[in-house]
Parts: sequence; structure tokens; C-alpha cells
Amino acid sequence: MSNWVRAHTNIALIKYWGKADEDLILPMNNSLSLTLDAFYTETSVTFDDALRSDELYLDDRMQDLAALKKVKTVLDLVREKAGITSKAKVMSYNHVPTAAGLASSASGLAALAGAASLAAGLELSSEELSKLARRGSGSASRSIYGGFAEWQKGTSHETSFAVPVDDADWDIGMLFIVVSDNKKDVSSREGMSRTVQTSPFYQGWLDSLDDDLSAMKLAIKEQDIHEVGVIAERNALKMHATTLGADPPFTYWSPDSMKAMEAVRALRDKGYSVHFTMDAGPNVKLICRQTQLEEIRTHLLNDFSESQLISARPGPGLHVVSRPGSQ
Amino acid sequence: MSNWVRAHTNIALIKYWGKADEDLILPMNNSLSLTLDAFYTETSVTFDDALRSDELYLDDRMQDLAALKKVKTVLDLVREKAGITSKAKVMSYNHVPTAAGLASSASGLAALAGAASLAAGLELSSEELSKLARRGSGSASRSIYGGFAEWQKGTSHETSFAVPVDDADWDIGMLFIVVSDNKKDVSSREGMSRTVQTSPFYQGWLDSLDDDLSAMKLAIKEQDIHEVGVIAERNALKMHATTLGADPPFTYWSPDSMKAMEAVRALRDKGYSVHFTMDAGPNVKLICRQTQLEEIRTHLLNDFSESQLISARPGPGLHVVSRPGSQ
Repeated sequence: MSNWVRAHTNIALIKYWGKADEDLILPMNNSLSLTLDAFYTETSVTFDDALRSDELYLDDRMQDLAALKKVKTVLDLVREKAGITSKAKVMSYNHVPTAAGLASSASGLAALAGAASLAAGLELSSEELSKLARRGSGSASRSIYGGFAEWQKGTSHETSFAVPVDDADWDIGMLFIVVSDNKKDVSSREGMSRTVQTSPFYQGWLDSLDDDLSAMKLAIKEQDIHEVGVIAERNALKMHATTLGADPPFTYWSPDSMKAMEAVRALRDKGYSVHFTMDAGPNVKLICRQTQLEEIRTHLLNDFSESQLISARPGPGLHVVSRPGSQ
Repeated sequence: MSNWVRAHTNIALIKYWGKADEDLILPMNNSLSLTLDAFYTETSVTFDDALRSDELYLDDRMQDLAALKKVKTVLDLVREKAGITSKAKVMSYNHVPTAAGLASSASGLAALAGAASLAAGLELSSEELSKLARRGSGSASRSIYGGFAEWQKGTSHETSFAVPVDDADWDIGMLFIVVSDNKKDVSSREGMSRTVQTSPFYQGWLDSLDDDLSAMKLAIKEQDIHEVGVIAERNALKMHATTLGADPPFTYWSPDSMKAMEAVRALRDKGYSVHFTMDAGPNVKLICRQTQLEEIRTHLLNDFSESQLISARPGPGLHVVSRPGSQ
């Protein structure tokens, strides 16, 4: 019997930015994302009494203890729930285009939650899987579902999980502009924490989220690509504004990020419905009609290279696959 | 008798961003600036019964009614105070390096306030001149003084004016990085107004200003170039963050602005005390030791051209000159 589980990455259109509880990974606000077909992780877990410690292999390379930390959190929760005491071997393959520099923690921890519970013989609901994935990485809670998902912040481990919003079976796509990044990163974990603690803008961010979230849900329901883009871009700019008020201030933007944003504005001037979002890094992610992805990509080739431009379509939720790499 | 008056431009280290009264130009917050030697305006006013309307010549070219609007506000106040009814001829020369793209309204309206009151025979105190200049352009209120000046916001025409803070006769200078700007500008007037009305970050900006202002005054008193820079950069980043939350959002940053900011961070990594500030446009203004201006300029020539880099030192306040262009 196969125990390989595949999970796709997701991009938040209403951002998760700030933790209310660092240990339980409870967020300060609800977030909403689109799961994508282009990037995914496949993971298999085997519990084995012969193992002396948990082992993690990522793309066939054994990982060190630091990389194992989040994984162990999820494995421990599964062991506790299933009454298992043996250690686990975790095999994981990331399917992300080379050098894309895109975070794989969402797909990685979601696939792990699925594979570990499968190997332990647990039959968990999507909600339970979402909570489990959340404990590994907050954004992984949303990768349990295909299409649009909302992570409802809750107030405890039991009440903080994602729910499906819409299957995204309509004319929406995303296009990634992968830009170089020469500066030292502030991790999303560190960035969130510093912003919550020091930015005079953090309360304004929180106060504006209910409006963004309800407007976004309405736009999704009406399959209004323009409004989805307008709200997502506005929300992302606000998230990035909060970091400029942190002490010390920081930004995830690079000169090339701004070049990409300006290219998006130029495409809008040409009449395309295209907007952008950005996460804790310099890459810029476009939201547009799926049917216009190639046309927009062609325009962008004036300013960016083939390998910098990656098209993505709505992707499926967590599912079992017969073997890694299979369709 | 000469009636030429010279005023230098100033750069705010604690920004003026938002009006409490659009007609009287009362600001939402106190601001603090450094007047610079590099850019100035020289203006002469002649009241003449033979004129049918006010006339404005800028660099020997007659200006249209739109350009005359702010000028007329100041002339009317002077006429009212002096009991003059005749129209005025205003001659003005801007001494700003070609294509620098730097706003001259601060020096321009300050020089006008001085020249008009001189021509009208009024003997105004610096406070009175500051109020008069303010009615033409808010930031002009600070160009009455050399060195550091604080514009105290007040609550009425009579209580809103700048005061001198420090003569800046110590080791501080500024270096302008003039970058190209291909996008349509949002004027500072429009930008302020939209931000005050729609940005969820505006209150956070206001709430953080007392701390910035008192820390800046202490740093100036202690002639601490590093702290002056840290506070100015932090303050500028916060001002620019507020625009990202406006509806619709906007930014004054271009890809080259970010390149300049990254160059500043790289200079800090080399051990220089250098920080930046930015106003309602893409140019980046460095704050550093006056004695290191040329050394820093040399480093920046790796990334920017000769004509993009302009050094500036603390400049004097409003004063009468024998003729335009004289020393």
C-alpha cells in the first residue's frame, strides 16, 4: 500500500502576518489563500521500531536537527494521538522549479501531516489535518484544501484551522516573477515577531482586515478577477508597510521587486486585469485570468527572462499518490 | 537699494505629512528640517500701480496663472498688512542643479515672503516671515532659518510657525542621489490628503512622532550624526509606509530609489555613519558627516553617475543679497 501524500503550496491573498501564540502557532488574523498546481511536496512516513531517532530526507539528502524541528512537532502530535512510540523515517520530495527561491514550508508541512497520520493509521478529517499541519507551519494549514481556503484564527489549538472557501474552478491564475535577492533575509518568523512588537502600524493593519476579508470572499463568490486582484494587492501592500515601521525597520522588497510591480502597473495600463501580491521575500506574484497567463507572460519577457516567469493554475488539496512523481 | 532676497531649500528629517487645515496650511504634526547651501531661490518683488495684474517671472520666463496661485496668496497677505493695493512684479531665479528634479517650493515661497515684505516696507520678525511663507507652502516656513528648524504646528495662522533649533555648525552634511522617475507623480498635496483620509496607518504615524521629535532634538543637541541619521531614516520609512495603506495605494519609490537605499545600507556595512531620507518623489537624500561627503560620493560613483550625486552642507537662513547670483 502506498503511503505517499502530495500537498501543493498556497499563496495568501489576505496575508497571515503575526502570531498570537508562538508555540501553538495561532495567528493574529484570519487569512485566505489560493492553492496552486505548480509547486508541491510529496512525502512518505514510516514508523519503525528499529530507528533510534527521527530521520528526515529531503530530495534524498538527510537533513540536520534544525530542519527536523518543525517535522518533529507534527510527528509527536501524531504519535500521541495514535499511541505510537517508535521513531519515524520521513522521505520528502519538493517539486519547485530550480532556483525559484519559493518557500516550501506550506506544502512540506501539509504533506507531512497527511503522510504521518496515514502511516499511523489515523483517519483524520480535513479540519484535524489542518490543525496538525498548522503546528508545523501556519500557512500549511491552508494547503490541506484545493482552490481558495480560509484559515480561521481561533483561540486555541482546537479552534484554529482552515476551511474550504471555493474550488477556484473559474478563470483565475497566478504568474510568479522570481527576482534575485542579494540581501540578508529577515525570516518570516522574525519579521512577524518584530513587526507585532514594534510597528506603530500593526494595529491599523489588524483593524483593516475584516473589510478586506469580507470584500475578498464576495469577489471570489462573484468570480470577479479584478476585485480579487485589487483587494489582494491592497492587502499585500499594507502587510509590507507594517515592516517599514518596525524597529529596526526592514523590507522584503528589492529594486527588482519594484521593477516587477511597475511592470504590473504597465500591464494594467494596457488593459489587463492583473495585480500582484508579495510575501516575506522579494518575489512578486501576479493574479490574473488563467486564459491570459501566456499573453501576459509574453509581455513580461521584455523585462524578465524565461526562467524568472512561472505560470500557475489553481491546484488540488492534499491527496494520496501511488508513488512520488506520478500523475 | 537692493530688494533681492535669497532663501535656501530645506530637507525635513522629521517629515511634514498631512494638513489639519488645507486653506491655512496648518500641519497635522510638528516637523524638523535642515536648511542646505546647495539649492536656493533669489526673488525680487516690485509693487507698481501701472500693473494691471500680478506677474511672476521664473528664470526670466513669465509664468501662467496656475503657477501664480501660491504667490498671490502671499502677496495678498503682504498687501493687506501694508495697506498696499497695487499689483506686483515678482522676479525669481532658482539655483538648483539642472535636471535635479528637486522641489523648489520651500526656498521659492520663503524668498517670496522675504522679498514681498521688504518691498512693502514691512519689518517682520522671523516668526512673522515664517507664517507668511507657510501660507504659500508649508515647508517654506522652515526655510526662514539656517541650520535646523522646527515647524511648530500650532492651531491657527498666528500659532503655526517655525523656530530655530541649532545652527548646524558641526560635522553634518547631505548627499542627494537624483534618480530617474518614469511614473506619473502623485503631488505631495494630493498624497498627503489621500493618506490622511484613507490610510489605516495614519494614526500610527501621528502617534509615533513625539518620540521621534524629542529623540531627534536630543541627537542634534549632542551632535550625534549616527542618531540623527537613524531617527531620520526611521521617520522617512514610516511616512512612506503610510502611502502604501492609502486607497488607492501609491508609492514615491522607484526601482532606482531602492537601489540607492541598498547602496546606503552597503556603505553602513563598510562602517560609514550614513542614513537616508526621502520626500514625495523618488530621490534619495543621504545624511552623513560633512567631512566624509567626498569619500562617500566616490563610493557611490560605482552605482551612480557624477550628475546624479550632489553634495550639500548646512545653509543660511533668509537674507538680502545685493543682486541675483552674487556671493
